[in-house]
Amino acid sequence: MKLSQRALDIQASPIRKLMPHAVKAKANGVKIYHLNIGQPDIPTPQEMIDVYQKFDDKVLAYGPSQGLEVYQKSLVHYYEKQGIKLDISDIIVTIAGSEAVTFAMMVAANEGDEIIVPEPFYTNYNGFATMASITLKPITTYAENGFALPADEEFEKLIGPKSRAIMLCNPGNPTGTVYSRAELERIAKLCKKHNLFLISDEVYREFVYDGLKHTSVLEFEGMDEHIIMVDSVSKRYSACGARIGCIVSRNKELMAATLKFAQARLCPPTVDQLAANACVYLPDEFFDDLIDEYQSRRDLVYNELMTIDDVVCIKPEGAFYIVAKLPIENAEDFVIWMLNEYRLDNETVMAAPCEGFYATPGLGRNELRLAYILNKDDLKKAMHIFREGLKEYRKIKG
Amino acid sequence: MKLSQRALDIQASPIRKLMPHAVKAKANGVKIYHLNIGQPDIPTPQEMIDVYQKFDDKVLAYGPSQGLEVYQKSLVHYYEKQGIKLDISDIIVTIAGSEAVTFAMMVAANEGDEIIVPEPFYTNYNGFATMASITLKPITTYAENGFALPADEEFEKLIGPKSRAIMLCNPGNPTGTVYSRAELERIAKLCKKHNLFLISDEVYREFVYDGLKHTSVLEFEGMDEHIIMVDSVSKRYSACGARIGCIVSRNKELMAATLKFAQARLCPPTVDQLAANACVYLPDEFFDDLIDEYQSRRDLVYNELMTIDDVVCIKPEGAFYIVAKLPIENAEDFVIWMLNEYRLDNETVMAAPCEGFYATPGLGRNELRLAYILNKDDLKKAMHIFREGLKEYRKIKG
Repeated sequence: MKLSQRALDIQASPIRKLMPHAVKAKANGVKIYHLNIGQPDIPTPQEMIDVYQKFDDKVLAYGPSQGLEVYQKSLVHYYEKQGIKLDISDIIVTIAGSEAVTFAMMVAANEGDEIIVPEPFYTNYNGFATMASITLKPITTYAENGFALPADEEFEKLIGPKSRAIMLCNPGNPTGTVYSRAELERIAKLCKKHNLFLISDEVYREFVYDGLKHTSVLEFEGMDEHIIMVDSVSKRYSACGARIGCIVSRNKELMAATLKFAQARLCPPTVDQLAANACVYLPDEFFDDLIDEYQSRRDLVYNELMTIDDVVCIKPEGAFYIVAKLPIENAEDFVIWMLNEYRLDNETVMAAPCEGFYATPGLGRNELRLAYILNKDDLKKAMHIFREGLKEYRKIKG
Repeated sequence: MKLSQRALDIQASPIRKLMPHAVKAKANGVKIYHLNIGQPDIPTPQEMIDVYQKFDDKVLAYGPSQGLEVYQKSLVHYYEKQGIKLDISDIIVTIAGSEAVTFAMMVAANEGDEIIVPEPFYTNYNGFATMASITLKPITTYAENGFALPADEEFEKLIGPKSRAIMLCNPGNPTGTVYSRAELERIAKLCKKHNLFLISDEVYREFVYDGLKHTSVLEFEGMDEHIIMVDSVSKRYSACGARIGCIVSRNKELMAATLKFAQARLCPPTVDQLAANACVYLPDEFFDDLIDEYQSRRDLVYNELMTIDDVVCIKPEGAFYIVAKLPIENAEDFVIWMLNEYRLDNETVMAAPCEGFYATPGLGRNELRLAYILNKDDLKKAMHIFREGLKEYRKIKG
């Protein structure tokens, strides 16, 4: 039986495909420091766990397709605290950020249409685009200038009759790059000029360091028709298993259409929504502590990277990832070698090769993404092993 | 800003669009018996609620994309009890039946391809097909013979170069029809002959009455390449808000591709999976009691319907729906009239007009779906109001 072309085409997770090597190493008793995945180690807030523990509805029933009203209202409150004024009808609760991105793509673009995305980008955008039969047109950004957004002319080279949207991730996964207000305003104007939607993935919106303030595209005026924001509680509250996100737009027609997509799948998980709802009312210190912790981890990883010769990396200002260009040819080969061959006191490190984050073939082969989702003691050990491993690898392979 | 064509095309929920009339009636203090939705009233098993209440992981983390292994293993056990032998790699846990249907459609068919579905069918198949840019080709079934499957020749009239699958819902929503083993074997053979996938939606698999036994397509031999089964815990355990389902196939290549779709959205909700897992080990009496209850409700609704002149309806053998052809022209108009005009002791009834369950324009206009998801006292009152309302409506409109 022949499968559909999209089933054949869809990208295998470039990170998960290396897991067998990790499994083998673990089976041999090797400890692996996982810097390869975006699973935070920070405890999920007790306020959230409490909601599960207190759940006692008689019937675990369907909620509304747009999300529980109590949670929609809390989200209005959440965004308002950040200076973003919304109506509850501007928000549809989704099954994590994944579904929000899928809805955004589908409501903006038809099969065969194009969405322009700065690369490197979150690999799963590929999967959602393949499912929706949409083509992602990559616009390359570079480690040398901290993966800054390219000039308008570069975007305009890609904008054609099939272009429907520009999609940004801010702060960026995998880059950790935080776009400035000026850069974002420039892209917003470009979208207006060319009649494109601007899809902004802001799931790391809190994860911004050095006293910077995150700019949401929802803050821009006169752009309501164009702006679609996607969000998620996964990283924010260390609640990746809750599968709660949202899609936000003040474009009423777009939200009406999105609601029809949402109605088809009935509703997001009920208890998880109640749990996410409790998180909206966490004290501000929760984020103060969180950001302090991640910022010091970022500093640690970045400073350790800077002790290695010939690494190209501008200190990223957000998310919890660093992309480093390494003085080797093939980062995937290095990762596999670390898992299969290299041990320091029977420990090794796993990172994510960046090639899978690029849509342009061949790019990113010498880049790695490091996720700083371990405590600082472990991170310190991991970075030591990483540096020593890289030194050894270059001796053997270089 | 122009939305995508699929955003414009996607069907609005034909049931939810009547909600404003219900909201208005309720605001006026009218009690509505809801026979319009498939939200069971049966309590969610305490064993399931207990899992939420005992959840105390430090970090609510991502699970594997294919589902938690403990739950996959439990599902193997669940199906084995019903004589269906599976390997855990034959099962991917999905975000409810909705996602399972979406994955099944996408892995089987490309944009522009066709899937043949007996109508009336579950309306949300339309939404999933629109999102995936797949065309559903309806094959009409009729109230007069209990919505039995049409002859092979009728299917073969629809099978063409773009046909990729036949999709069945068994027991049927909205029809309540249970397909016999012989009927299913005939369709399976047809799929084999024409190189089609057979997608079987079995979310109501337990809801079979009169001592009949449900036949799963997974029981057929020599069909492993063709068979895709979709399932959900929503109805089975009155756990619609948990959003846990699964897709099952012994076609290894198909499951490998489906896993890539699943990896794109990372994972199903973690706590809900643990809760669903507990349900697999409920004592057999749980279902014995459940089926007794639903069967007696079905008898009640069916017998009440039979006291009304000119109603066409064969007693359905499964799910918790009855479709009745009424001696009126427009069932939607009747439902709206019941909500807006008709009261008996300040109470009325809401049912689901069937037109939205047909893909062929104009069909089902005089049919209603009644969901027997209320206790028998309420059902008895509801059916009395329904009968009296219909009598009155026919006097006025007929």
